[in-house]
Amino acid sequence: MNIILLADADRTINDTFTVSDYRAEHIRTVLQSKVGETVEVGLLNGPLGTATIEDLGGSHIRLTVTEWREASRPAYEVDIICAVPRPKTVKKILAIAAGMNVRSLHFVRANRTDKSYLESPLLKEPERLPYLYDGLSQGKFTRLPVVEVHPLFRPFVEDEVPDIFADRLKLVADPSGERLTTIFSPSHQPGEVVIAIGPEGGWVPFELDLLVTTGFTPFQLGPWTLRVENALVAALSQLALVAAKESI
Amino acid sequence: MNIILLADADRTINDTFTVSDYRAEHIRTVLQSKVGETVEVGLLNGPLGTATIEDLGGSHIRLTVTEWREASRPAYEVDIICAVPRPKTVKKILAIAAGMNVRSLHFVRANRTDKSYLESPLLKEPERLPYLYDGLSQGKFTRLPVVEVHPLFRPFVEDEVPDIFADRLKLVADPSGERLTTIFSPSHQPGEVVIAIGPEGGWVPFELDLLVTTGFTPFQLGPWTLRVENALVAALSQLALVAAKESI
Repeated sequence: MNIILLADADRTINDTFTVSDYRAEHIRTVLQSKVGETVEVGLLNGPLGTATIEDLGGSHIRLTVTEWREASRPAYEVDIICAVPRPKTVKKILAIAAGMNVRSLHFVRANRTDKSYLESPLLKEPERLPYLYDGLSQGKFTRLPVVEVHPLFRPFVEDEVPDIFADRLKLVADPSGERLTTIFSPSHQPGEVVIAIGPEGGWVPFELDLLVTTGFTPFQLGPWTLRVENALVAALSQLALVAAKESI
Repeated sequence: MNIILLADADRTINDTFTVSDYRAEHIRTVLQSKVGETVEVGLLNGPLGTATIEDLGGSHIRLTVTEWREASRPAYEVDIICAVPRPKTVKKILAIAAGMNVRSLHFVRANRTDKSYLESPLLKEPERLPYLYDGLSQGKFTRLPVVEVHPLFRPFVEDEVPDIFADRLKLVADPSGERLTTIFSPSHQPGEVVIAIGPEGGWVPFELDLLVTTGFTPFQLGPWTLRVENALVAALSQLALVAAKESI
C-alpha cells in the first residue's frame, strides 16, 4: 500500500479524515506511524496528498491532509476488454488495471469462458471494490476504473464497441499478430487505446475475426503462453514502450 | 496447465510414463481425457511431445509419447537477479520465471528485504519445485530455471556477478533510467541479458550505485509503481519487444 486511499465518506470536516478499517491497520502495523508523522494519501477520484496523523487512540485514526497535489494525467488513455476469467484471476485483473491507471475495464464472455464465471460476485460492486482500491493504493493512483460486464460477446463487439471506442486505436493480443514495434511508427501518438485480452487458451477464430472486422489489429506479446493477468501487464508495458515516448 | 510435465522418474519403459499426482488429477478432471486420446507433454529439461493415454484405471495414468519435438531455443537468454520478496511473492516469481523461459533466477537480499524472508522454505528445493513446474506447464517450456539464493548483497554483486555474468548485457529496473527503446538500438542483438529487479520500495541508493558500478544500466518500466511480480513480467515483455526482432 503506497498511498492511503481516502474517500469523501471518510471526511470529518475540511481536510480532516477518519479511518478505521484495513487502512488504520496498515498505518498501525506496517507503517507504524506515530502522532505527528505524515503518510502519503490519495482522495478517491481526486488529488494525491500528504497527511499528518493527529490521533491514533481507540479504533479510529484521524489525519489531516496538509498538502494536496493534482494527480498527473496519463499521456494516453487505455481501456481494456478482457474475456471473463476465473474468479481468482478477476481479482488480479481488477488490481492490475487500477494499479496501472487503466480508465475502464470491460469484461466480456468469450467462447472459452466458463459460464459459471459470469456468476462470480467479484464482477459486482461492492465485491470488486477492495481489489480496485488495492490496485490504486499500490500504484499511487486515485482514479477508479469503470468496470462493466458484457454477457454476450457478439452484440457487445458488433453493436457497443464501435460506439464506446469510436476513433480509438484498437488492439487485440493474439499470437497471429505483429509486434507492437511494427504496428507503431516512432512518431505515432495513440491518444486513446483499447486493448482486448483473450481467455486462457486464446480467442476462438470467430471471436478474433469479429474483432478484426470491428477494427482491432492483432499484436503478439512474445514467445510465451501467458496467464491472463500477466498478458495484461505485458500488453500495458509494451504499449508504454512504443507510445508517447516523451511521457514516461 | 498447457502441457503435462514428465520427468525421467515417471518413465516406466521406453516412451511410456506413469503419473499419479496432480498431473493425473488434471488429466482426469480438467482435460477429461479418455483412453486413446492424446495430451501435450514435455520432458523436464528435454523435448516437448504428444502422448496417448493408455490406461486411466486406478490411481495411476499410463501414457506413451508417440511424438517428440525438440523444444525451441530462446532467441536470447535472460537471467534474473531479484531482491528476495515476501514468500507469497516468491511463489509468483518462480512461476513467472519458469513460464517465461528465464534461464536462472538469483534471489539476493536487499536493504529493503525483511530478514525473515530469507528463512522462507520456498527458497529451498524441493519446496520451490512445484511453482517452477507450474510455470513450465503453463508456458509450455521444459527447462528448469537454475535458482540460487545470495544472502549478502555486496559480496554477491562485487565478487560473484562479474564472473557469473561476464560479457552479459546488464540491466537494472529503476525509475531513474531511460526506456529500453532508448538503450537498445534497432540493430542491437543482446545475446545474453541479466536483469536486476528490486524489492517493493525499490533499491536504496547504495545498491543502485553498486549495480551501476558493476556495469548495470538502469532502465524504467513506465509511469507505474509495480508489484515485484508485475515488474518482472513488464521487464521481460519490454525486452522481448526491443531484442531479437525477428525471433518472436
